[in-house]
Amino acid sequence: METMPADRGQAGPTISEVAAEAGVGRATAARTLGGYGYVSPELRARVLAAAEKLGYRANALARSMSTGVSHTLGVIVADIGNPFFAGLLRGISDTSRARGFDVIVLSTYENLGQEVAATNVLIDKRVDGVIVASAALDRDQVAHLKAAMDRGIPIVLVDRAVAALDLDAVVIDNREAAREAVEVLIAAGHRRIGFVWGPPVAQAPATRRELLAAASHNLWTDGERLRGYLDALDDAHIPFDPELVMVGPKTEERVVGEVGRMLALPDRVTAVFCTETDGMTGSLRALRKAGLSYPDDVALIGFDDSAWAAVMEPPLTMIAQPVHELGAKAAQVLLDILGGAEPAREMHTLRSRLIQRSSVAPPRLSSE
Amino acid sequence: METMPADRGQAGPTISEVAAEAGVGRATAARTLGGYGYVSPELRARVLAAAEKLGYRANALARSMSTGVSHTLGVIVADIGNPFFAGLLRGISDTSRARGFDVIVLSTYENLGQEVAATNVLIDKRVDGVIVASAALDRDQVAHLKAAMDRGIPIVLVDRAVAALDLDAVVIDNREAAREAVEVLIAAGHRRIGFVWGPPVAQAPATRRELLAAASHNLWTDGERLRGYLDALDDAHIPFDPELVMVGPKTEERVVGEVGRMLALPDRVTAVFCTETDGMTGSLRALRKAGLSYPDDVALIGFDDSAWAAVMEPPLTMIAQPVHELGAKAAQVLLDILGGAEPAREMHTLRSRLIQRSSVAPPRLSSE
Repeated sequence: METMPADRGQAGPTISEVAAEAGVGRATAARTLGGYGYVSPELRARVLAAAEKLGYRANALARSMSTGVSHTLGVIVADIGNPFFAGLLRGISDTSRARGFDVIVLSTYENLGQEVAATNVLIDKRVDGVIVASAALDRDQVAHLKAAMDRGIPIVLVDRAVAALDLDAVVIDNREAAREAVEVLIAAGHRRIGFVWGPPVAQAPATRRELLAAASHNLWTDGERLRGYLDALDDAHIPFDPELVMVGPKTEERVVGEVGRMLALPDRVTAVFCTETDGMTGSLRALRKAGLSYPDDVALIGFDDSAWAAVMEPPLTMIAQPVHELGAKAAQVLLDILGGAEPAREMHTLRSRLIQRSSVAPPRLSSE
Repeated sequence: METMPADRGQAGPTISEVAAEAGVGRATAARTLGGYGYVSPELRARVLAAAEKLGYRANALARSMSTGVSHTLGVIVADIGNPFFAGLLRGISDTSRARGFDVIVLSTYENLGQEVAATNVLIDKRVDGVIVASAALDRDQVAHLKAAMDRGIPIVLVDRAVAALDLDAVVIDNREAAREAVEVLIAAGHRRIGFVWGPPVAQAPATRRELLAAASHNLWTDGERLRGYLDALDDAHIPFDPELVMVGPKTEERVVGEVGRMLALPDRVTAVFCTETDGMTGSLRALRKAGLSYPDDVALIGFDDSAWAAVMEPPLTMIAQPVHELGAKAAQVLLDILGGAEPAREMHTLRSRLIQRSSVAPPRLSSE
């Protein structure tokens, strides 16, 4: 009866693992393997023996780096409780470790004050570079990131572009993904399609123009998904109805109330498009409260795919983001910059994928 | 049309936020507010003004600390992709921030080598204390944590006790929680109850004694949940059947195969108890493959409750761990030690809660 070994993965050992094997501090191992600073001959021999034993290979990146590199990347995520970010972190971690870098993570819970604090912690802890899914909405909110860059710490944005920063950003095709999902609903015959969630403003914007103005002052991803929804309506000549867009705080409770409201309209929604996991679970609760079921009473499509969405009965049609690839690409862009590459300062856009399952059916016009 | 402000929470500002407000480095703010080291009169004045403006209050803890405190806690979690750990981190973060500490996180993906590396990173980054959900299984696997303690870094275990370490551990009543859940299944009339998942051994242990021996060399939480399952069977005089315990890798794919096997037995399972989220989603996939549904064909109870479990149709009966409280308590114990309290070196056990919904019905004896 033998316990199976934990999966060691493809990644070579990190500086830290070599240090542990040699019984020396991480800084000593980094100095020895990086070829900078003083290390006593005895410790040096131990580190090299440990590196040999573990199969550590200094890569071109490590060799190209100058003194004082800490071999650590910092990642600032907006909400560690969102499985999307967990998947992203795995991609960052796998790629970073394969290139000899450890990763430390801070979560801001969508709070700009915490993002400022997190950035300062990472500067303080002397990370070599930072990947951030920023809560910053405009140019008044990016001083902390500029301060890190001023100290020579390169930054790559992930998930969310920030217009005020001319940086590499690794994102998905949010607008196109939303448009495709809403087109599937329209193709099934729906014209009354709810959008969950919209900008977190207190009152529903009366016009499309006001709605887009509100979106432009809020999260880039949310705005892009809203634009995709509007694109699909426009193409099908379906007029925009402000009553079908959720506003207010982005919480599951709020979704239950707002979708409930849309289901109680005289000309109620026959489909709901959810841009977040909480939007989907909230919409499902709203359906149950109203005594309705999917896909016959209401069609549903959501972000992001998960194991749960696949086991729902009927299984849910969902947009799957390439979460691991997003993280891996962000880490790769950052590590390339650390290795001496000139930042491209461009938007790297990955494709999401609509997984069609069984939560979309035509509207039941007869019973309306 | 006004954008609603992000929730700032009850927590006071951290050192980092004061530093950002003052436009100084975090170390300067820490020295000023901690009353140690040299700070120029001008910077000192700026920091104090910022602290005043933001309402920063140095607490007794901060005042009691000696020079060089970094006001950062390190957290090592086994898998950042598990929503359980995400909830735990929120509890740690909220409590730490309320006491002026930032939190940095590393995920080991259940890999001991990565845990060793993570510990070394945290030593290197000079965190004041560490909270760890360790992948270590026995005394040969804890040298890295002992090394951190030797450097004066206090450690608190969370979620998982490690017998080889005489440390404070903040955990839930895993054995009792599992016993209670299985008792509910037995009370409904079930005697053929599957256990997902057991120890990750390659072959099913033939006897109860071998099973417990295997469990004792694997994760503490898994072993405790297995003991609770056996307790409930014993109390009801239901004989242990090794065919009803899943072994092998702890993955959703493996669950699908193993539960499928248990459903194909001549005397098949009529209920499944799942100790992890992947155990539940895998069991649901196995039911679908077998053309069976819950609760009538098979009763289900699982760990951990989630928004998805509540919106499943029928909604799932689940064990809810007090995830936020677990994290908050672990942070509190660690911060108390940092503040000068003597470590109690005890197991702090919090109560979980069984949320009865609609996934348990009596077995359909007539159709068996």
